[in-house]
Amino acid sequence: MGFFSADIETVDDLFMHTLNATYYAENKIINALPTMIEKADNDMLKQAFKMHLEETMRQVKMLPGSDAAGSPAIDGIIQEADDVTSDIDNPFVMDAALIVAAQAVEHYEINRYGSLIAWAEELKLDPRIVSLLTQTLGEEKAADVKLTQLATQAINRKAA
Amino acid sequence: MGFFSADIETVDDLFMHTLNATYYAENKIINALPTMIEKADNDMLKQAFKMHLEETMRQVKMLPGSDAAGSPAIDGIIQEADDVTSDIDNPFVMDAALIVAAQAVEHYEINRYGSLIAWAEELKLDPRIVSLLTQTLGEEKAADVKLTQLATQAINRKAA
Repeated sequence: MGFFSADIETVDDLFMHTLNATYYAENKIINALPTMIEKADNDMLKQAFKMHLEETMRQVKMLPGSDAAGSPAIDGIIQEADDVTSDIDNPFVMDAALIVAAQAVEHYEINRYGSLIAWAEELKLDPRIVSLLTQTLGEEKAADVKLTQLATQAINRKAA
Repeated sequence: MGFFSADIETVDDLFMHTLNATYYAENKIINALPTMIEKADNDMLKQAFKMHLEETMRQVKMLPGSDAAGSPAIDGIIQEADDVTSDIDNPFVMDAALIVAAQAVEHYEINRYGSLIAWAEELKLDPRIVSLLTQTLGEEKAADVKLTQLATQAINRKAA
């Protein structure tokens, strides 16, 4: 049993546990993004991270979760980002590594919000919850698409 | 600097580091899947995990990586899956939790293979490498779609 996790007996419990893990993850990302902004070399990438930090801060204020669950997954994803970027000096290689690290975070979040929405619909929760989660999922997907565009259009080409 | 990571000076280095982290992750998944097969209640889910185990064992044999890099990200994703499923007795809730855990793994892999393909193309690596990575990416995406189908069609409905 995880130290922070309560027994999960129903899908409601699983929904709440996952919501809380996502809340924890979003706060962890808010703490990680300023360092990523600092490490980024490309101005468009810096700007994309800044925008996503503001977006995430707004999302987490609306999210009806709590710090009741940790998330070893997001801890590990951010640890891997720290490990890899600590080994890089070249600014173009750094940007390529930052993009893949940020996309790992986005993919984790897309997975979590996707499941939360499916469960919220099954559980017939307040439609405002579904609507909020759906809006956030859309923003995470848009952030992922933007990172792919930045990677393919400019940064990887310079780095190669 | 991560204990297992070498200095990353070029996109070639970043490609090799990420390839090795992915190789480590695939092996970690091969170790985790038998427990997930055992924990799964729904026969179609059990079958999907069995198929994915065989697929992953085949993929990793072809992958030109090594154990030279660890992956705190996949360690954390699998730790979170263990923590959550250890807290669950109800077989339908277990299946819902296993699906979201497996999809977290798929999303991590889709992210890694997507980046590896982009870098391999930029670096003009042997087209057979790109072809192999592209085939594997397709299989990971198909596994993700299958899990979503299982989740939405049957398991979540029973669990709710």
